[in-house]
Amino acid sequence: MPGNRVRLVAKQPGLVRTDNASPLGLMADEPISAVERPDVLVVPGGPGELQARQDPDVVDWVRAVHQHTRWTTSVCTGSLILGAAGILEGLRATGHWAWLEPLRQFGAEPTHQRVVRQGKVITAAGVSSGIDMALELLQLEYGDAMAQAIQLAIEYDPQPPLDAGSPEKAPPEVVETVRKAISKLTH
Amino acid sequence: MPGNRVRLVAKQPGLVRTDNASPLGLMADEPISAVERPDVLVVPGGPGELQARQDPDVVDWVRAVHQHTRWTTSVCTGSLILGAAGILEGLRATGHWAWLEPLRQFGAEPTHQRVVRQGKVITAAGVSSGIDMALELLQLEYGDAMAQAIQLAIEYDPQPPLDAGSPEKAPPEVVETVRKAISKLTH
Repeated sequence: MPGNRVRLVAKQPGLVRTDNASPLGLMADEPISAVERPDVLVVPGGPGELQARQDPDVVDWVRAVHQHTRWTTSVCTGSLILGAAGILEGLRATGHWAWLEPLRQFGAEPTHQRVVRQGKVITAAGVSSGIDMALELLQLEYGDAMAQAIQLAIEYDPQPPLDAGSPEKAPPEVVETVRKAISKLTH
Repeated sequence: MPGNRVRLVAKQPGLVRTDNASPLGLMADEPISAVERPDVLVVPGGPGELQARQDPDVVDWVRAVHQHTRWTTSVCTGSLILGAAGILEGLRATGHWAWLEPLRQFGAEPTHQRVVRQGKVITAAGVSSGIDMALELLQLEYGDAMAQAIQLAIEYDPQPPLDAGSPEKAPPEVVETVRKAISKLTH
């Protein structure tokens, strides 16, 4: 979105690798400590969330900056980090379908919806839902015409060749396969 | 996709910044010269394509490795690089909607479709279409069940809040705004 500044931060600045067999390296240019007053906070997901939510420095930072945001958001398993920071207590929230139930331990009410907005807190479902959330955020902040412009610029006219994007739509045996693969990943 | 190795390459290895005001840094771990026999080549897009397609080293490399691929693919303006390498001559091809006509100079027939497959060459439309192409590629290589599993794992059940993802669907004044913004970006 023109006129905004995006800052990618991590506990320690430097290259952050995705936690899988084909690691993509993303650059965190600054430490979390460099950002104290974000307008919009986006907490991403990833298998690494299991460690991150036990990292008190990250969780404390999320809790602290949340006081100053216009919007506090998460995508995928990022909602577990918002939960650990106490931000989801008493709220409906979503996240990756395979990690919805763990949200209860933080006092949240897991909700099978692609994007869940509760006051200034927005949680989105599994990773690709971040696109839908981003467009909703544009609508809220800038109106429909700007959200339409960005949607058109990224040509977001989805045409998945199959219809298996949620556990309700995928064949049961596929859901079982993915559950098992995910369970292996995180244990 | 488990069992595969993803290698991110650039002319020179190192951090590659996206060409906009909020630069995201992606790591190219190896130079293009390190990869001579990719099974699947994916050429991404970006405003940088204008330079890249005039970089004979990149274009020559694409042309050379194409001889050995099972699939040669592009997303967004990446099709201009395939075009410059002579790979699209006589083929139907797609790309970002605002850069379809330039494909003609390479002997390609611009095609308003989200994913266009011609033999082993697959081109996809604007950036978000890469997800749809990836799922089609999984179908072709591994069958529907595996494509469904990956679709479910990334919870790709798109629900855009607005319906403006193509120039046919967006309001005319939005299309005009985006055309102008893009034209500024690249001139």
